[in-house]
Amino acid sequence: MRALEERIREDGVLKSGGILKVDSFLNHQMDIEFINEIGKEFYRLFQEEGVTKILTIEASGIGIACITAQYFHVPVVFAKKVQSKNLDGDVYTSTVHSYTHGKEYTIRVSKKYITEHDRVLIIDDFLAKGKAIIGLMDILKQAGATVVGAGICIEKGFQEGGAYLRSQGLRVESLAVVDLDENGGIQFRE
Amino acid sequence: MRALEERIREDGVLKSGGILKVDSFLNHQMDIEFINEIGKEFYRLFQEEGVTKILTIEASGIGIACITAQYFHVPVVFAKKVQSKNLDGDVYTSTVHSYTHGKEYTIRVSKKYITEHDRVLIIDDFLAKGKAIIGLMDILKQAGATVVGAGICIEKGFQEGGAYLRSQGLRVESLAVVDLDENGGIQFRE
Repeated sequence: MRALEERIREDGVLKSGGILKVDSFLNHQMDIEFINEIGKEFYRLFQEEGVTKILTIEASGIGIACITAQYFHVPVVFAKKVQSKNLDGDVYTSTVHSYTHGKEYTIRVSKKYITEHDRVLIIDDFLAKGKAIIGLMDILKQAGATVVGAGICIEKGFQEGGAYLRSQGLRVESLAVVDLDENGGIQFRE
Repeated sequence: MRALEERIREDGVLKSGGILKVDSFLNHQMDIEFINEIGKEFYRLFQEEGVTKILTIEASGIGIACITAQYFHVPVVFAKKVQSKNLDGDVYTSTVHSYTHGKEYTIRVSKKYITEHDRVLIIDDFLAKGKAIIGLMDILKQAGATVVGAGICIEKGFQEGGAYLRSQGLRVESLAVVDLDENGGIQFRE
């Protein structure tokens, strides 16, 4: 998606360790009109898939998922990272290692909201090592739901998540795939 | 907002300890078309206020804030609860006690995204003891921004947050104010 690549070039900041900061428009401050363009693009890509639910993970995926869901006219479910009094009863759980936060955590989805009749589109802001998506797919497998694919805003092509998920047969559509050039700058994969 | 009261009556579940579960449509599974009606109502209430930013707190406020922001045509900023490699540099911080999760945490907002020129609407899903809103107001005060008010989906009238915030001069608009009746059921304040 050319507009996203341009926005990353203009406003993204690449830090040491392969951290790409896009907190001015995507995952701290959120440019909602721009995220609507992202939502439209995910709809264009997955509109034939009979999506019944969008699944994401707190926190930074939620806003993008909600905006995108308007085009599909389906509910969003977000996996919770924190054990909460608000989420009791029967839940699916999976364990995720967070590279960004440097720890493991358990994600939880109530069994009420994902069933074997669902055709689920996973949405997230970033794909790096793919651990969050693997956790969400584990939950969808437990639920017996069909995964139609993953819509990712920014994939780090220099990390292994995208290649691994595609090798598992998942349809991954990343609107921008960032690689590092030899000078440590960013370039976009065609 | 009558539609929200009806939805709470139909789909909300009151648990012991004053926990009101609305995870079927508001803060785990999210009914996006319904949340659009909530966003329109917040716009109706605050449209004269010259809002330049919507501020919320991760996680369950984010989706509601993003949908609402479409009507105001302004960006969303969400305060982060977790120290992250993605949020370095100068940040405003405040400490919040979470009743739901039973612990204290630090919230953070980058100084880049809230300034003294901003007129900020706070959006959140719940208001109970008001600690999250107090934390957000503390950050806005540090930034020198103007707070135009707080748009809350569900206020627990049987807890003290709403009364306290209003006594501090904050305009609080809660779309449903829930009280407990003598049988421990819920009723709505006019």
